[in-house]
Amino acid sequence: MRMRNKPWAIDYLNQHSEIVVTEVDDLQQDVWQQFIRSNDIKHIEVGSGMGRFITTLAKQNPYIQYISVELDKNVMVRVLDKVLEQNLDNIRLICLPIEEIHDYLAINPLDQLYLNFSDPWPKNRHEKRRLTHHNYLSIYEKFLKDDALIQFKTDNRKLFEYSLISMSQYGYQFVDINLHVHDREPDDNIRTEYEEKFSSKGSRIYMLKAKLNE
Amino acid sequence: MRMRNKPWAIDYLNQHSEIVVTEVDDLQQDVWQQFIRSNDIKHIEVGSGMGRFITTLAKQNPYIQYISVELDKNVMVRVLDKVLEQNLDNIRLICLPIEEIHDYLAINPLDQLYLNFSDPWPKNRHEKRRLTHHNYLSIYEKFLKDDALIQFKTDNRKLFEYSLISMSQYGYQFVDINLHVHDREPDDNIRTEYEEKFSSKGSRIYMLKAKLNE
Repeated sequence: MRMRNKPWAIDYLNQHSEIVVTEVDDLQQDVWQQFIRSNDIKHIEVGSGMGRFITTLAKQNPYIQYISVELDKNVMVRVLDKVLEQNLDNIRLICLPIEEIHDYLAINPLDQLYLNFSDPWPKNRHEKRRLTHHNYLSIYEKFLKDDALIQFKTDNRKLFEYSLISMSQYGYQFVDINLHVHDREPDDNIRTEYEEKFSSKGSRIYMLKAKLNE
Repeated sequence: MRMRNKPWAIDYLNQHSEIVVTEVDDLQQDVWQQFIRSNDIKHIEVGSGMGRFITTLAKQNPYIQYISVELDKNVMVRVLDKVLEQNLDNIRLICLPIEEIHDYLAINPLDQLYLNFSDPWPKNRHEKRRLTHHNYLSIYEKFLKDDALIQFKTDNRKLFEYSLISMSQYGYQFVDINLHVHDREPDDNIRTEYEEKFSSKGSRIYMLKAKLNE
């Protein structure tokens, strides 16, 4: 999800340091250590895009704490807008690569992970950048509970095929699979901005839920 | 694949007892024991329908021995026709339920198993009849080598979703998945009679290859 560069984005995010992290060291602050170490149910989305998915979940489930990870500051401001507009107090935003923050998250493992419409990186030489590559699965394993659920949704058939193979070979077991989400769309499906746009063009949406241990 | 009843089917099959088995006890005959105990590479198809798939493979790979399992005698005569017409000497037909013959096959485990367009049994109460149900997977495990490949193809989305879940939970790892086989159809895809008919109506064809151990 590329956005026009917003030179003011970093300042805007940093003005809300109680909600947003833009530097790894900030995770050592008391307010964040308290959040990380709290025993609330915690769900994380890696690659939140404009944030409709995770903010909708946060509104629906006030007793779950949500963590939105999105690298692009120009995109993250859209998530922050939604959080502020809706006065959501159960969501934190981390504008950093998951590779740099997993040690902090691992202090108190999380309950669920969402991946939505991740970059497909179609070229073989970019395989390692796909968020369902073994390297990423092993990062997630470090900060997820043993019975945590991963939910993954995409309109990219090749990425979905790749992910089924990669996850099964890593040891994941699938607990739900839907190869055409918008055909009899489940009541609990939350359409992302991207999903809305591309499904109206007739793309199929694919979804899986997986666990390492039943 | 239902066929009109052919009262002569059983006699026709029994006239070719060197190729066809219609009674479990026949597997104790010398000619069958010799086949079962031979160390040739052996592939099996469970539910061969009219047999185009397995007879095409048998023609392409003369050094592999093929076993075609099909319950319906009225359908099996169509497989036998193809075997006789093409003078194939590397294929045997077993007109019995897999549940009744797996002990014989287990004497010398097989290298590969094919399932093509198996009956979807869509009702939940018929789940156990699906050929990718855990009960069947445990039967296959008894007569397949440790690193044997299972290849499964269907046009039924629900059955495919079910099978991905069932097989991953049984411990299978996927080594190949194709969620739209006829979009850039692979050179080695062999279309079954059923596949030809239904893909021309626009149905998607789904395919997976899986192994219990890499």
